Amino acid sequence: MTNTQHHPVTVLGLGAMGRALAQTLVKAGVPTTVWNRTPGRDAEVVAAGAVSAATAGQAVRGGDLVIAVLLDHASVHQTLDPIAAELSGKQLLNLTSTAPEQSRELAEWAAVHGIDFLDGGIMAVPSMIGADGSSILYSGSETVFQAHRPALESLGSAEFFGTDPGLAALWDFALLTSMYTMFGGFFQAAALVGTAGVPAAEFAPRAAAWVSAMASSLPRYARIIDSGDYTGEVFQDLVFTKSALDALRQAASDAGITAEPLSGIADLVDRQVAAGHGAAAFERSIEALRGH
Amino acid sequence: MTNTQHHPVTVLGLGAMGRALAQTLVKAGVPTTVWNRTPGRDAEVVAAGAVSAATAGQAVRGGDLVIAVLLDHASVHQTLDPIAAELSGKQLLNLTSTAPEQSRELAEWAAVHGIDFLDGGIMAVPSMIGADGSSILYSGSETVFQAHRPALESLGSAEFFGTDPGLAALWDFALLTSMYTMFGGFFQAAALVGTAGVPAAEFAPRAAAWVSAMASSLPRYARIIDSGDYTGEVFQDLVFTKSALDALRQAASDAGITAEPLSGIADLVDRQVAAGHGAAAFERSIEALRGH
Repeated sequence: MTNTQHHPVTVLGLGAMGRALAQTLVKAGVPTTVWNRTPGRDAEVVAAGAVSAATAGQAVRGGDLVIAVLLDHASVHQTLDPIAAELSGKQLLNLTSTAPEQSRELAEWAAVHGIDFLDGGIMAVPSMIGADGSSILYSGSETVFQAHRPALESLGSAEFFGTDPGLAALWDFALLTSMYTMFGGFFQAAALVGTAGVPAAEFAPRAAAWVSAMASSLPRYARIIDSGDYTGEVFQDLVFTKSALDALRQAASDAGITAEPLSGIADLVDRQVAAGHGAAAFERSIEALRGH
Repeated sequence: MTNTQHHPVTVLGLGAMGRALAQTLVKAGVPTTVWNRTPGRDAEVVAAGAVSAATAGQAVRGGDLVIAVLLDHASVHQTLDPIAAELSGKQLLNLTSTAPEQSRELAEWAAVHGIDFLDGGIMAVPSMIGADGSSILYSGSETVFQAHRPALESLGSAEFFGTDPGLAALWDFALLTSMYTMFGGFFQAAALVGTAGVPAAEFAPRAAAWVSAMASSLPRYARIIDSGDYTGEVFQDLVFTKSALDALRQAASDAGITAEPLSGIADLVDRQVAAGHGAAAFERSIEALRGH
Protein backbone atom coordinates (compact mmCIF):
# COMPACT_ATOMS: atom_id res chain seq x y z
CA MET A 1 0.00 0.00 0.00
CA THR A 2 2.96 2.38 0.14
CA ASN A 3 2.89 5.17 -2.35
CA THR A 4 5.81 7.49 -2.94
CA GLN A 5 3.44 10.39 -3.60
CA HIS A 6 1.94 10.33 -0.13
CA HIS A 7 3.33 10.58 3.39
CA PRO A 8 1.82 8.11 5.87
CA VAL A 9 -1.21 9.42 7.73
CA THR A 10 -2.79 8.44 11.06
CA VAL A 11 -6.51 8.90 11.71
CA LEU A 12 -7.54 9.16 15.37
CA GLY A 13 -11.28 8.59 15.74
CA LEU A 14 -13.45 6.20 13.75
CA GLY A 15 -16.87 7.74 14.05
CA ALA A 16 -18.82 8.05 10.80
CA MET A 17 -16.62 10.93 9.64
CA GLY A 18 -13.34 9.30 10.70
CA ARG A 19 -14.22 6.09 8.87
CA ALA A 20 -15.15 8.03 5.73
CA LEU A 21 -11.86 9.94 5.83
CA ALA A 22 -9.76 6.79 6.43
CA GLN A 23 -11.54 4.86 3.66
CA THR A 24 -10.97 7.68 1.21
CA LEU A 25 -7.29 8.06 2.14
CA VAL A 26 -6.69 4.32 1.67
CA LYS A 27 -8.45 4.43 -1.68
CA ALA A 28 -6.19 7.32 -2.73
CA GLY A 29 -3.11 5.20 -1.94
CA VAL A 30 -2.18 6.94 1.30
CA PRO A 31 -0.54 4.60 3.88
CA THR A 32 -3.11 4.91 6.66
CA THR A 33 -3.03 3.92 10.35
CA VAL A 34 -6.24 4.11 12.35
CA TRP A 35 -7.25 4.08 16.01
CA ASN A 36 -10.47 4.43 17.94
CA ARG A 37 -11.04 4.61 21.71
CA THR A 38 -13.85 2.05 21.53
CA PRO A 39 -12.68 -1.07 19.66
CA GLY A 40 -14.60 -2.73 16.84
CA ARG A 41 -15.01 0.25 14.56
CA ASP A 42 -12.02 -0.59 12.33
CA ALA A 43 -13.18 -3.72 10.43
CA GLU A 44 -14.19 -1.95 7.24
CA VAL A 45 -11.15 0.30 6.95
CA VAL A 46 -8.73 -2.53 7.83
CA ALA A 47 -10.35 -4.67 5.13
CA ALA A 48 -9.76 -1.78 2.72
CA GLY A 49 -6.06 -1.71 3.62
CA ALA A 50 -5.57 0.47 6.70
CA VAL A 51 -3.41 -0.63 9.64
CA SER A 52 -5.17 -0.65 12.99
CA ALA A 53 -3.23 0.38 16.12
CA ALA A 54 -4.05 -0.77 19.66
CA THR A 55 -3.27 2.58 21.27
CA ALA A 56 -3.30 6.21 20.19
CA GLY A 57 0.43 6.36 20.90
CA GLN A 58 1.16 3.43 18.57
CA ALA A 59 -1.12 4.94 15.92
CA VAL A 60 0.76 8.24 16.03
CA ARG A 61 4.08 6.49 15.39
CA GLY A 62 2.64 5.23 12.07
CA GLY A 63 1.97 8.64 10.51
CA ASP A 64 3.85 11.81 9.57
CA LEU A 65 0.50 13.58 9.65
CA VAL A 66 -1.91 12.84 12.48
CA ILE A 67 -5.57 13.66 11.83
CA ALA A 68 -7.81 14.04 14.89
CA VAL A 69 -11.52 13.48 14.10
CA LEU A 70 -12.97 13.19 17.57
CA LEU A 71 -16.23 14.08 19.31
CA ASP A 72 -15.39 17.58 20.50
CA HIS A 73 -12.68 19.87 21.83
CA ALA A 74 -12.54 18.10 25.22
CA SER A 75 -12.03 14.69 23.64
CA VAL A 76 -9.15 16.06 21.54
CA HIS A 77 -7.33 16.96 24.76
CA GLN A 78 -8.29 13.68 26.45
CA THR A 79 -6.76 11.78 23.53
CA LEU A 80 -3.74 13.94 22.72
CA ASP A 81 -2.54 15.24 26.12
CA PRO A 82 -1.18 11.83 27.22
CA ILE A 83 0.73 11.36 23.93
CA ALA A 84 2.07 14.90 23.49
CA ALA A 85 5.65 13.54 23.60
CA GLU A 86 4.99 11.14 20.71
CA LEU A 87 3.38 13.95 18.70
CA SER A 88 6.32 16.31 19.18
CA GLY A 89 7.98 17.03 15.83
CA LYS A 90 4.99 15.66 13.92
CA GLN A 91 2.24 17.42 12.05
CA LEU A 92 -1.29 17.53 13.43
CA LEU A 93 -4.52 18.24 11.55
CA ASN A 94 -7.62 18.81 13.68
CA LEU A 95 -10.79 17.94 11.78
CA THR A 96 -12.87 17.64 14.94
CA SER A 97 -15.72 20.20 14.96
CA THR A 98 -14.28 22.87 17.21
CA ALA A 99 -15.19 26.52 17.63
CA PRO A 100 -12.75 29.19 16.40
CA GLU A 101 -11.52 29.94 19.94
CA GLN A 102 -11.07 26.20 20.61
CA SER A 103 -9.05 25.73 17.43
CA ARG A 104 -6.84 28.64 18.48
CA GLU A 105 -6.39 27.04 21.92
CA LEU A 106 -5.38 23.72 20.33
CA ALA A 107 -2.85 25.56 18.17
CA GLU A 108 -1.30 27.12 21.29
CA TRP A 109 -1.18 23.73 23.01
CA ALA A 110 0.46 22.23 19.92
CA ALA A 111 3.05 25.01 19.73
CA VAL A 112 4.07 24.37 23.37
CA HIS A 113 4.70 20.71 22.48
CA GLY A 114 6.57 21.35 19.22
CA ILE A 115 3.72 20.10 17.03
CA ASP A 116 2.98 21.81 13.70
CA PHE A 117 -0.79 22.49 13.73
CA LEU A 118 -3.35 22.79 10.97
CA ASP A 119 -7.09 23.12 11.59
CA GLY A 120 -9.85 22.16 9.20
CA GLY A 121 -13.60 22.67 8.88
CA ILE A 122 -15.40 19.97 6.92
CA MET A 123 -18.27 21.32 4.79
CA ALA A 124 -19.70 17.88 4.02
CA VAL A 125 -21.45 14.92 5.60
CA PRO A 126 -19.54 11.60 5.80
CA SER A 127 -21.18 10.15 2.68
CA MET A 128 -19.86 13.08 0.62
CA ILE A 129 -16.17 12.67 1.59
CA GLY A 130 -14.05 12.09 -1.52
CA ALA A 131 -16.95 12.93 -3.82
CA ASP A 132 -17.94 16.05 -5.76
CA GLY A 133 -19.30 18.75 -3.46
CA SER A 134 -17.09 17.84 -0.51
CA SER A 135 -15.12 20.84 0.66
CA ILE A 136 -12.70 21.28 3.56
CA LEU A 137 -11.52 24.70 4.75
CA TYR A 138 -8.03 24.87 6.31
CA SER A 139 -6.10 27.39 8.38
CA GLY A 140 -3.03 27.40 10.62
CA SER A 141 0.29 25.96 9.41
CA GLU A 142 0.65 26.41 5.66
CA THR A 143 3.65 24.02 5.80
CA VAL A 144 1.38 21.18 6.93
CA PHE A 145 -1.25 22.10 4.32
CA GLN A 146 1.25 22.12 1.44
CA ALA A 147 3.12 18.98 2.57
CA HIS A 148 -0.04 16.86 2.48
CA ARG A 149 -2.04 18.66 -0.17
CA PRO A 150 -2.47 15.66 -2.52
CA ALA A 151 -3.86 13.55 0.35
CA LEU A 152 -6.11 16.42 1.48
CA GLU A 153 -7.38 16.96 -2.07
CA SER A 154 -8.47 13.32 -2.15
CA LEU A 155 -10.97 14.11 0.65
CA GLY A 156 -12.62 17.09 -1.03
CA SER A 157 -11.70 20.47 -2.43
CA ALA A 158 -8.98 21.85 -0.15
CA GLU A 159 -8.58 25.56 0.47
CA PHE A 160 -6.19 27.39 2.77
CA PHE A 161 -7.70 30.46 4.47
CA GLY A 162 -4.73 31.85 6.40
CA THR A 163 -2.32 31.27 9.25
CA ASP A 164 -4.80 32.21 12.04
CA PRO A 165 -5.71 28.67 13.21
CA GLY A 166 -9.24 29.88 14.08
CA LEU A 167 -10.04 31.08 10.55
CA ALA A 168 -11.22 27.77 9.04
CA ALA A 169 -13.59 27.21 11.97
CA LEU A 170 -14.75 30.83 11.72
CA TRP A 171 -15.65 30.43 8.03
CA ASP A 172 -17.22 27.05 8.80
CA PHE A 173 -19.31 28.56 11.61
CA ALA A 174 -20.27 31.55 9.48
CA LEU A 175 -21.52 29.29 6.66
CA LEU A 176 -23.42 27.10 9.14
CA THR A 177 -24.97 30.25 10.66
CA SER A 178 -26.20 31.24 7.19
CA MET A 179 -27.54 27.75 6.60
CA TYR A 180 -29.45 27.23 9.85
CA THR A 181 -30.94 30.72 9.70
CA MET A 182 -32.09 30.09 6.13
CA PHE A 183 -33.69 26.79 7.21
CA GLY A 184 -35.50 28.67 9.99
CA GLY A 185 -36.92 31.07 7.43
CA PHE A 186 -38.08 28.16 5.30
CA PHE A 187 -39.82 26.54 8.28
CA GLN A 188 -41.71 29.76 9.03
CA ALA A 189 -42.61 30.27 5.37
CA ALA A 190 -43.76 26.64 4.96
CA ALA A 191 -45.84 26.94 8.13
CA LEU A 192 -47.43 30.11 6.74
CA VAL A 193 -48.53 28.64 3.40
CA GLY A 194 -49.45 25.47 5.30
CA THR A 195 -52.21 27.42 7.10
CA ALA A 196 -53.96 27.70 3.71
CA GLY A 197 -53.53 23.98 3.04
CA VAL A 198 -50.50 24.31 0.75
CA PRO A 199 -48.19 21.28 1.22
CA ALA A 200 -44.56 22.11 2.06
CA ALA A 201 -43.55 20.00 -0.95
CA GLU A 202 -45.48 22.34 -3.24
CA PHE A 203 -43.81 25.39 -1.69
CA ALA A 204 -40.23 24.07 -1.37
CA PRO A 205 -39.06 24.13 -5.02
CA ARG A 206 -40.16 27.74 -5.44
CA ALA A 207 -38.66 28.70 -2.08
CA ALA A 208 -35.35 27.08 -3.09
CA ALA A 209 -35.27 28.92 -6.43
CA TRP A 210 -36.24 32.24 -4.81
CA VAL A 211 -33.73 31.98 -1.97
CA SER A 212 -30.98 31.11 -4.47
CA ALA A 213 -31.94 34.05 -6.70
CA MET A 214 -31.92 36.42 -3.73
CA ALA A 215 -28.63 34.98 -2.42
CA SER A 216 -27.04 35.97 -5.73
CA SER A 217 -27.42 39.60 -4.60
CA LEU A 218 -25.28 39.07 -1.48
CA PRO A 219 -22.12 40.45 -3.13
CA ARG A 220 -23.96 43.75 -3.68
CA TYR A 221 -24.95 43.82 0.01
CA ALA A 222 -21.35 43.04 0.93
CA ARG A 223 -20.04 45.96 -1.09
CA ILE A 224 -22.25 48.38 0.88
CA ILE A 225 -21.27 46.77 4.20
CA ASP A 226 -17.54 46.98 3.45
CA SER A 227 -17.86 50.61 2.37
CA GLY A 228 -19.37 51.50 5.78
CA ASP A 229 -21.46 54.09 3.92
CA TYR A 230 -25.13 53.24 4.33
CA THR A 231 -26.57 56.48 2.97
CA GLY A 232 -24.82 56.89 -0.39
CA GLU A 233 -26.49 54.07 -2.30
CA VAL A 234 -29.87 53.17 -0.76
CA PHE A 235 -31.64 50.45 -2.71
CA GLN A 236 -34.12 49.91 0.13
CA ASP A 237 -34.22 52.03 3.26
CA LEU A 238 -34.74 50.82 6.81
CA VAL A 239 -38.15 52.52 7.27
CA PHE A 240 -39.52 50.68 4.22
CA THR A 241 -37.90 47.45 5.44
CA LYS A 242 -39.44 47.87 8.89
CA SER A 243 -42.91 48.29 7.44
CA ALA A 244 -42.43 45.18 5.26
CA LEU A 245 -41.18 43.13 8.23
CA ASP A 246 -44.03 44.38 10.44
CA ALA A 247 -46.51 43.24 7.78
CA LEU A 248 -44.84 39.82 7.56
CA ARG A 249 -44.99 39.39 11.35
CA GLN A 250 -48.62 40.48 11.37
CA ALA A 251 -49.45 37.95 8.63
CA ALA A 252 -47.84 35.16 10.70
CA SER A 253 -49.87 36.23 13.71
CA ASP A 254 -53.09 36.45 11.62
CA ALA A 255 -52.42 32.92 10.38
CA GLY A 256 -51.92 31.63 13.93
CA ILE A 257 -48.20 30.85 13.76
CA THR A 258 -45.26 32.34 15.66
CA ALA A 259 -42.51 34.24 13.88
CA GLU A 260 -39.22 33.59 15.72
CA PRO A 261 -37.07 32.99 12.60
CA LEU A 262 -38.02 36.33 11.03
CA SER A 263 -37.94 38.17 14.37
CA GLY A 264 -34.14 38.21 14.48
CA ILE A 265 -33.65 40.39 11.43
CA ALA A 266 -36.80 42.37 12.32
CA ASP A 267 -35.31 43.20 15.74
CA LEU A 268 -32.09 44.45 14.14
CA VAL A 269 -34.05 46.67 11.76
CA ASP A 270 -36.28 47.98 14.59
CA ARG A 271 -33.22 48.94 16.63
CA GLN A 272 -31.63 50.77 13.69
CA VAL A 273 -34.82 52.71 12.99
CA ALA A 274 -35.22 53.56 16.69
CA ALA A 275 -31.62 54.84 16.69
CA GLY A 276 -32.53 57.31 13.94
CA HIS A 277 -31.15 55.43 10.90
CA GLY A 278 -34.49 55.00 9.10
CA ALA A 279 -33.29 56.67 5.90
CA ALA A 280 -30.16 54.47 5.76
CA ALA A 281 -29.86 51.31 3.67
CA PHE A 282 -31.19 47.93 4.87
CA GLU A 283 -27.57 46.72 4.92
CA ARG A 284 -27.02 48.88 8.02
CA SER A 285 -28.80 46.13 10.01
CA ILE A 286 -25.42 44.40 10.34
CA GLU A 287 -24.24 47.26 12.58
CA ALA A 288 -26.89 46.30 15.17
CA LEU A 289 -25.10 42.94 15.58
CA ARG A 290 -21.91 44.86 16.33
CA GLY A 291 -23.71 46.97 18.94
CA HIS A 292 -23.57 50.13 16.78
CA MET B 1 -52.61 52.34 -29.96
CA THR B 2 -55.62 50.02 -30.01
CA ASN B 3 -54.82 46.36 -30.28
CA THR B 4 -57.43 43.70 -30.91
CA GLN B 5 -55.51 41.21 -28.76
CA HIS B 6 -55.84 43.24 -25.57
CA HIS B 7 -58.73 44.63 -23.57
CA PRO B 8 -58.24 48.21 -22.35
CA VAL B 9 -56.66 48.49 -18.92
CA THR B 10 -56.71 51.24 -16.29
CA VAL B 11 -53.82 51.71 -13.86
CA LEU B 12 -54.68 53.55 -10.61
CA GLY B 13 -51.52 54.72 -8.89
CA LEU B 14 -48.36 56.03 -10.52
CA GLY B 15 -45.73 55.35 -7.92
CA ALA B 16 -42.54 53.69 -9.18
CA MET B 17 -44.33 50.34 -9.56
CA GLY B 18 -47.45 51.80 -11.18
CA ARG B 19 -45.36 53.71 -13.72
CA ALA B 20 -43.36 50.60 -14.55
CA LEU B 21 -46.55 48.56 -15.05
CA ALA B 22 -48.21 51.24 -17.20
CA GLN B 23 -45.09 51.71 -19.36
CA THR B 24 -44.83 47.96 -19.94
CA LEU B 25 -48.53 47.60 -20.80
CA VAL B 26 -48.33 50.46 -23.33
CA LYS B 27 -45.22 48.90 -24.86
CA ALA B 28 -47.12 45.58 -25.19
CA GLY B 29 -49.87 47.36 -27.14
CA VAL B 30 -52.45 47.43 -24.36
CA PRO B 31 -54.74 50.50 -24.48
CA THR B 32 -53.86 52.03 -21.11
CA THR B 33 -55.52 54.74 -19.02
CA VAL B 34 -53.68 56.05 -15.97
CA TRP B 35 -54.53 58.10 -12.89
CA ASN B 36 -52.66 59.26 -9.82
CA ARG B 37 -53.96 61.13 -6.76
CA THR B 38 -51.09 63.61 -6.88
CA PRO B 39 -50.78 65.13 -10.39
CA GLY B 40 -47.55 65.35 -12.36
CA ARG B 41 -46.54 61.71 -12.27
CA ASP B 42 -47.97 60.85 -15.71
CA ALA B 43 -45.66 62.69 -18.13
CA GLU B 44 -43.51 59.70 -19.05
CA VAL B 45 -46.34 57.21 -19.52
CA VAL B 46 -48.47 59.71 -21.48
CA ALA B 47 -45.48 60.37 -23.76
CA ALA B 48 -45.29 56.61 -24.28
CA GLY B 49 -48.94 56.47 -25.34
CA ALA B 50 -51.12 56.16 -22.21
CA VAL B 51 -54.22 58.30 -21.69
CA SER B 52 -54.28 60.28 -18.46
CA ALA B 53 -57.56 60.72 -16.59
CA ALA B 54 -58.35 63.64 -14.27
CA THR B 55 -60.27 61.53 -11.74
CA ALA B 56 -60.23 57.89 -10.65
CA GLY B 57 -63.86 57.59 -11.81
CA GLN B 58 -62.98 58.78 -15.33
CA ALA B 59 -59.96 56.47 -15.38
CA VAL B 60 -62.10 53.46 -14.48
CA ARG B 61 -64.45 54.14 -17.41
CA GLY B 62 -61.48 53.74 -19.76
CA GLY B 63 -60.65 50.14 -18.81
CA ASP B 64 -62.29 46.71 -18.74
CA LEU B 65 -59.64 45.72 -16.22
CA VAL B 66 -58.75 48.13 -13.43
CA ILE B 67 -55.38 47.62 -11.76
CA ALA B 68 -54.90 49.18 -8.31
CA VAL B 69 -51.23 49.78 -7.43
CA LEU B 70 -51.55 52.02 -4.42
CA LEU B 71 -49.65 52.62 -1.19
CA ASP B 72 -51.41 50.14 1.07
CA HIS B 73 -54.72 48.51 1.94
CA ALA B 74 -56.18 51.72 3.41
CA SER B 75 -55.41 53.74 0.29
CA VAL B 76 -57.13 51.10 -1.87
CA HIS B 77 -60.35 51.71 0.06
CA GLN B 78 -59.84 55.50 0.02
CA THR B 79 -59.55 55.39 -3.76
CA LEU B 80 -62.12 52.72 -4.65
CA ASP B 81 -64.92 53.19 -2.10
CA PRO B 82 -66.17 56.46 -3.69
CA ILE B 83 -66.22 54.89 -7.21
CA ALA B 84 -67.68 51.49 -6.32
CA ALA B 85 -70.66 52.19 -8.59
CA GLU B 86 -68.40 52.84 -11.60
CA LEU B 87 -66.45 49.64 -10.85
CA SER B 88 -69.58 47.48 -10.67
CA GLY B 89 -69.56 44.91 -13.48
CA LYS B 90 -65.86 45.52 -14.16
CA GLN B 91 -62.81 43.44 -13.32
CA LEU B 92 -60.39 44.55 -10.62
CA LEU B 93 -56.78 43.44 -10.10
CA ASN B 94 -55.19 44.51 -6.82
CA LEU B 95 -51.39 44.70 -7.15
CA THR B 96 -51.01 46.87 -4.06
CA SER B 97 -48.88 45.11 -1.41
CA THR B 98 -51.58 43.82 0.91
CA ALA B 99 -51.47 41.06 3.51
CA PRO B 100 -53.41 37.84 2.87
CA GLU B 101 -56.24 38.86 5.24
CA GLN B 102 -56.41 42.30 3.58
CA SER B 103 -56.63 40.77 0.10
CA ARG B 104 -59.47 38.55 1.33
CA GLU B 105 -61.25 41.60 2.78
CA LEU B 106 -60.92 43.45 -0.56
CA ALA B 107 -62.38 40.42 -2.35
CA GLU B 108 -65.40 40.50 -0.02
CA TRP B 109 -65.84 44.22 -0.59
CA ALA B 110 -65.62 43.68 -4.36
CA ALA B 111 -68.19 40.86 -4.26
CA VAL B 112 -70.66 43.13 -2.47
CA HIS B 113 -70.29 45.68 -5.28
CA GLY B 114 -70.49 43.21 -8.16
CA ILE B 115 -66.80 43.53 -9.04
CA ASP B 116 -64.85 40.48 -10.21
CA PHE B 117 -61.68 40.47 -8.09
CA LEU B 118 -58.18 39.13 -8.71
CA ASP B 119 -55.26 39.70 -6.35
CA GLY B 120 -51.59 39.66 -7.29
CA GLY B 121 -48.25 39.59 -5.49
CA ILE B 122 -45.37 41.13 -7.46
CA MET B 123 -42.06 39.28 -6.98
CA ALA B 124 -39.98 42.00 -8.61
CA VAL B 125 -38.78 45.55 -8.18
CA PRO B 126 -40.07 48.21 -10.63
CA SER B 127 -36.97 48.06 -12.86
CA MET B 128 -37.58 44.34 -13.44
CA ILE B 129 -41.18 44.66 -14.68
CA GLY B 130 -41.50 43.27 -18.20
CA ALA B 131 -38.01 41.77 -18.06
CA ASP B 132 -36.68 38.29 -17.40
CA GLY B 133 -36.96 37.35 -13.74
CA SER B 134 -40.13 39.34 -13.10
CA SER B 135 -42.82 37.12 -11.63
CA ILE B 136 -46.36 37.91 -10.46
CA LEU B 137 -48.43 35.47 -8.40
CA TYR B 138 -52.21 35.63 -8.81
CA SER B 139 -55.23 34.30 -6.91
CA GLY B 140 -58.95 35.01 -6.75
CA SER B 141 -61.08 35.13 -9.91
CA GLU B 142 -59.70 32.78 -12.54
CA THR B 143 -62.03 34.45 -15.07
CA VAL B 144 -60.20 37.75 -14.65
CA PHE B 145 -56.82 36.00 -14.82
CA GLN B 146 -57.63 34.15 -18.06
CA ALA B 147 -59.35 37.13 -19.74
CA HIS B 148 -56.25 39.32 -19.41
CA ARG B 149 -53.53 36.71 -19.45
CA PRO B 150 -51.63 38.12 -22.48
CA ALA B 151 -51.46 41.56 -20.85
CA LEU B 152 -50.44 40.02 -17.51
CA GLU B 153 -47.75 37.92 -19.21
CA SER B 154 -46.24 41.12 -20.61
CA LEU B 155 -45.48 42.24 -17.04
CA GLY B 156 -43.68 39.07 -15.95
CA SER B 157 -44.32 35.37 -15.65
CA ALA B 158 -47.96 34.99 -14.56
CA GLU B 159 -49.11 32.11 -12.40
CA PHE B 160 -52.53 31.41 -10.91
CA PHE B 161 -52.44 29.91 -7.41
CA GLY B 162 -56.11 29.31 -6.69
CA THR B 163 -59.47 30.94 -6.05
CA ASP B 164 -58.74 31.92 -2.41
CA PRO B 165 -58.00 35.64 -2.97
CA GLY B 166 -55.48 35.56 -0.08
CA LEU B 167 -53.30 32.85 -1.62
CA ALA B 168 -51.12 35.03 -3.87
CA ALA B 169 -50.33 37.34 -0.95
CA LEU B 170 -49.70 34.33 1.28
CA TRP B 171 -47.13 32.88 -1.17
CA ASP B 172 -45.66 36.37 -1.63
CA PHE B 173 -45.34 36.83 2.14
CA ALA B 174 -43.92 33.33 2.60
CA LEU B 175 -41.23 33.96 -0.04
CA LEU B 176 -40.40 37.36 1.50
CA THR B 177 -40.19 35.71 4.94
CA SER B 178 -37.63 33.24 3.52
CA MET B 179 -35.71 36.06 1.89
CA TYR B 180 -35.46 38.45 4.85
CA THR B 181 -34.57 35.64 7.24
CA MET B 182 -31.82 34.48 4.87
CA PHE B 183 -30.47 38.05 4.68
CA GLY B 184 -30.42 38.15 8.49
CA GLY B 185 -28.33 34.98 8.54
CA PHE B 186 -25.93 36.51 6.04
CA PHE B 187 -25.56 39.67 8.15
CA GLN B 188 -24.70 37.59 11.23
CA ALA B 189 -22.27 35.39 9.27
CA ALA B 190 -20.59 38.39 7.64
CA ALA B 191 -20.27 40.09 11.03
CA LEU B 192 -18.68 36.89 12.41
CA VAL B 193 -15.96 36.57 9.75
CA GLY B 194 -15.59 40.35 9.91
CA THR B 195 -14.28 40.02 13.48
CA ALA B 196 -11.23 38.28 12.00
CA GLY B 197 -10.78 41.01 9.39
CA VAL B 198 -12.40 39.12 6.51
CA PRO B 199 -14.22 41.61 4.23
CA ALA B 200 -17.91 40.84 3.58
CA ALA B 201 -17.11 40.92 -0.15
CA GLU B 202 -14.68 38.02 0.31
CA PHE B 203 -17.28 36.03 2.23
CA ALA B 204 -20.38 36.81 0.12
CA PRO B 205 -19.74 34.71 -3.02
CA ARG B 206 -19.08 31.59 -0.93
CA ALA B 207 -22.09 32.32 1.28
CA ALA B 208 -24.29 32.70 -1.81
CA ALA B 209 -23.07 29.41 -3.29
CA TRP B 210 -23.43 27.58 0.03
CA VAL B 211 -26.93 28.92 0.78
CA SER B 212 -28.03 27.98 -2.74
CA ALA B 213 -26.59 24.47 -2.37
CA MET B 214 -28.31 24.01 0.99
CA ALA B 215 -31.59 25.44 -0.34
CA SER B 216 -31.60 22.67 -2.93
CA SER B 217 -32.28 20.24 -0.06
CA LEU B 218 -35.53 22.02 0.93
CA PRO B 219 -37.73 19.56 -1.02
CA ARG B 220 -36.31 16.73 1.15
CA TYR B 221 -37.17 18.72 4.30
CA ALA B 222 -40.64 19.37 2.89
CA ARG B 223 -41.26 15.67 2.35
CA ILE B 224 -40.57 14.95 6.04
CA ILE B 225 -42.74 17.91 7.13
CA ASP B 226 -45.69 16.82 4.98
CA SER B 227 -45.42 13.24 6.25
CA GLY B 228 -45.79 14.47 9.84
CA ASP B 229 -43.47 11.60 10.82
CA TYR B 230 -40.33 13.05 12.37
CA THR B 231 -38.89 9.82 13.73
CA GLY B 232 -38.92 7.48 10.71
CA GLU B 233 -36.17 9.10 8.65
CA VAL B 234 -33.81 11.12 10.84
CA PHE B 235 -30.97 12.66 8.85
CA GLN B 236 -30.04 14.94 11.76
CA ASP B 237 -31.71 14.78 15.16
CA LEU B 238 -32.71 17.71 17.35
CA VAL B 239 -30.17 16.99 20.12
CA PHE B 240 -27.31 17.16 17.60
CA THR B 241 -28.84 20.28 16.07
CA LYS B 242 -29.16 21.93 19.48
CA SER B 243 -25.50 21.32 20.25
CA ALA B 244 -24.48 22.74 16.84
CA LEU B 245 -26.65 25.83 17.34
CA ASP B 246 -25.36 26.31 20.90
CA ALA B 247 -21.79 26.23 19.53
CA LEU B 248 -22.68 28.78 16.83
CA ARG B 249 -24.25 31.13 19.40
CA GLN B 250 -21.22 30.72 21.67
CA ALA B 251 -18.89 31.55 18.77
CA ALA B 252 -20.85 34.74 18.06
CA SER B 253 -20.61 35.69 21.73
CA ASP B 254 -16.86 34.86 21.81
CA ALA B 255 -16.39 37.11 18.79
CA GLY B 256 -18.28 39.99 20.44
CA ILE B 257 -21.35 40.04 18.22
CA THR B 258 -25.00 39.35 18.99
CA ALA B 259 -26.88 36.45 17.41
CA GLU B 260 -30.51 37.49 16.89
CA PRO B 261 -30.87 36.07 13.34
CA LEU B 262 -29.77 32.57 14.39
CA SER B 263 -31.64 32.74 17.70
CA GLY B 264 -35.03 32.25 16.05
CA ILE B 265 -34.35 28.75 14.75
CA ALA B 266 -32.29 27.98 17.87
CA ASP B 267 -35.28 28.85 20.08
CA LEU B 268 -37.54 26.51 18.09
CA VAL B 269 -35.02 23.68 18.44
CA ASP B 270 -34.57 24.35 22.17
CA ARG B 271 -38.33 24.17 22.73
CA GLN B 272 -38.62 20.89 20.82
CA VAL B 273 -35.76 19.32 22.80
CA ALA B 274 -37.24 20.59 26.09
CA ALA B 275 -40.57 19.01 25.09
CA GLY B 276 -38.84 15.63 24.81
CA HIS B 277 -38.38 15.44 21.02
CA GLY B 278 -34.57 15.33 21.04
CA ALA B 279 -34.37 12.11 19.04
CA ALA B 280 -36.74 13.44 16.36
CA ALA B 281 -35.60 14.98 13.07
CA PHE B 282 -34.52 18.65 12.80
CA GLU B 283 -37.55 19.20 10.55
CA ARG B 284 -39.78 18.89 13.64
CA SER B 285 -38.75 22.50 14.47
CA ILE B 286 -41.63 23.66 12.25
CA GLU B 287 -44.08 22.24 14.80
CA ALA B 288 -42.82 24.76 17.38
CA LEU B 289 -44.12 27.55 15.11
CA ARG B 290 -47.52 25.89 15.18
CA GLY B 291 -47.44 25.70 18.97
CA HIS B 292 -47.02 21.90 19.00
